[in-house]
Amino acid sequence: MMEPREQAVAETGLRVDLASRSYDIVIGSGVLRELGGLVRPVLARPAAVVVTDTNVAPHYLGTALASLRAAGIAAGEVVMPAGEATKDFAHLETLCDRLLAAGVERTTTLIALGGGVIGDLTGFAAGIVLRGLAFIQVPTTLLAQVDSAVGGKTGINTPRGKNLIGLFYQPKLVVADSDTLATLDARQRRAGYAEVVKYGLIGDAAFFAWLERNGAAVCAGDAAACREAILTSCAAKARIVAADEREAGRRALLNLGHTFGHALEAEAGYGDALLHGEAVAIGMAMAFALSARLNLCAPEAAARVRSHLRSVGLPTALDDLEPRPVWSAAALARHMDHDKKVEGGRPRFVLASDIGAAFVSDAVPAADLISILRQFGAA
Amino acid sequence: MMEPREQAVAETGLRVDLASRSYDIVIGSGVLRELGGLVRPVLARPAAVVVTDTNVAPHYLGTALASLRAAGIAAGEVVMPAGEATKDFAHLETLCDRLLAAGVERTTTLIALGGGVIGDLTGFAAGIVLRGLAFIQVPTTLLAQVDSAVGGKTGINTPRGKNLIGLFYQPKLVVADSDTLATLDARQRRAGYAEVVKYGLIGDAAFFAWLERNGAAVCAGDAAACREAILTSCAAKARIVAADEREAGRRALLNLGHTFGHALEAEAGYGDALLHGEAVAIGMAMAFALSARLNLCAPEAAARVRSHLRSVGLPTALDDLEPRPVWSAAALARHMDHDKKVEGGRPRFVLASDIGAAFVSDAVPAADLISILRQFGAA
Repeated sequence: MMEPREQAVAETGLRVDLASRSYDIVIGSGVLRELGGLVRPVLARPAAVVVTDTNVAPHYLGTALASLRAAGIAAGEVVMPAGEATKDFAHLETLCDRLLAAGVERTTTLIALGGGVIGDLTGFAAGIVLRGLAFIQVPTTLLAQVDSAVGGKTGINTPRGKNLIGLFYQPKLVVADSDTLATLDARQRRAGYAEVVKYGLIGDAAFFAWLERNGAAVCAGDAAACREAILTSCAAKARIVAADEREAGRRALLNLGHTFGHALEAEAGYGDALLHGEAVAIGMAMAFALSARLNLCAPEAAARVRSHLRSVGLPTALDDLEPRPVWSAAALARHMDHDKKVEGGRPRFVLASDIGAAFVSDAVPAADLISILRQFGAA
Repeated sequence: MMEPREQAVAETGLRVDLASRSYDIVIGSGVLRELGGLVRPVLARPAAVVVTDTNVAPHYLGTALASLRAAGIAAGEVVMPAGEATKDFAHLETLCDRLLAAGVERTTTLIALGGGVIGDLTGFAAGIVLRGLAFIQVPTTLLAQVDSAVGGKTGINTPRGKNLIGLFYQPKLVVADSDTLATLDARQRRAGYAEVVKYGLIGDAAFFAWLERNGAAVCAGDAAACREAILTSCAAKARIVAADEREAGRRALLNLGHTFGHALEAEAGYGDALLHGEAVAIGMAMAFALSARLNLCAPEAAARVRSHLRSVGLPTALDDLEPRPVWSAAALARHMDHDKKVEGGRPRFVLASDIGAAFVSDAVPAADLISILRQFGAA
């Protein structure tokens, strides 16, 4: 069903190298059951609070708590509502209050058990409660395992845009159990897969070619294919973050498709109508089309990107969304002006000269941007 | 009116030595009028937003903006409500939203113009908007100039306690204009003076002796005495923060009187009924009385502390407050259990073996604590 890129093992360790803030990423099948033993060495004292959501709790909270307690760790729990709407100021305040109510001290460690929303929100809360608690990421979705759980970006959304409020705050450990992907529905796995494709597109053409052959297996939840995809993605992210923790340079490439994607999500209202990974898929197709329009890359490269995303069932234009949204190109462009990545009033885009060769540009003419948005279905 | 401790100059510079996060403190008469020229060298680009409150704006916002603009700096403004109640989640969200509405980018610098509330709130917002903007402290109260503007503690209060949510986030520069103290009312200056006394009590007996002779002049707003007090206090704080930025050790001494004080403020409800400095004054008197009760220091030292605080008109017990509050010792002790400084379930107190010789202890018997609280007027 899949071809191995390198020797696969049941449990693999990577390391994010950030001097005193370095940490390990443990990837494997069934590692959630070993959570207590894995986290024990990085705790300041054997006390933790697991933060999760109403979707994840029924599947994995019991396993996590049992493993922690078996390892002699006093473990509390906070269950937040599931969904992107939880990444806002009101839920941040609620989470902080519940952590204080649970009696956290400066040496208590938070454990984020869930997808990107729980990881981003819990990491942010960890950074500000009592001016900073340690935290551990236990991502349970493909998107979180390959992207958001690694690298220390935490935060919440505001009505003005995604992730506009937050911290660079690194976890002490990441534990990714590939078995948890089995409980994801196919749409969620596909959405996470968009971030996997991103690593191929920004800097690893061979990985993209591997994905062209094995992407369907990843999206179907094939265990070996998923582990391979997680491992390669995390290794790429760990390298990039180690070289540029605070996004002064190369880390910005990880935003491929995100300037477009965030604008789409802002119009969609951050709900289930458009998942983050789906927005990124459309955004990556747009970014390559824009690159081709500006004669920066060959039209064939842009077509190949779009074709692969479509082949696994990801949307690549507004026409692919149900119900078909009516968003104006001007409104989408305005959202981009409010993006974090704006510098000197100009939004920055990640463009590409080929598959595996992305770069940052703030020299996109407004007319070309509008033209691409319209080409992809904006009004 | 006052005796100089060292040669006074119109403008004096100190430095907080924190490697790549080091910064200068400029203290002087009239330096607010030179704000633009002073801040220009530390800005990433000539763009700033001044955050202030409704009390401070009428006095100093115009001067600050004019000086910034004269130096070629594009300067926006956000005016928040005055008062401790502004240090909460709702106002943090409002401030973040207004900063985003003002079009801040990652290279925009925030300037906190005001007292401790504005400094703590703005510093926190700076730390989280777009995952971190640079900020500058321009403290306009005695309390902020001698204490809260230096050292990078930022944050907000919650119903569970003071400063329970926040960041260690250092400013790029502190500009303290001693002339701004003239517009403070006498009660506010006295409240700030409590933090001045703290520096003498924790590590500088000679400074405390100087304050016994010159404290009245400082509280009366005498310019030379105030500058001397600010300079000595900031120098002490800069040394302590440089040695222990994140309060792993010696920095905890700066909490003398604060474990008690925060509990008093929590009961008072963070309003004008009890100012922070007044709570700290009572708390320092309690801390020395507790030290004497535990035979850690001579009763004469505790009496001398209380006598000096009373001599300048600061409260040192609940009886000194108007209207006389009825707070139970048990309720006050419960607040202390929720303090940030709790470790392993035991609140930590700063005690003293003498004036100028403070230390941290988590070995205070509950019965002695309750007894001291009752001796100072708790029910």
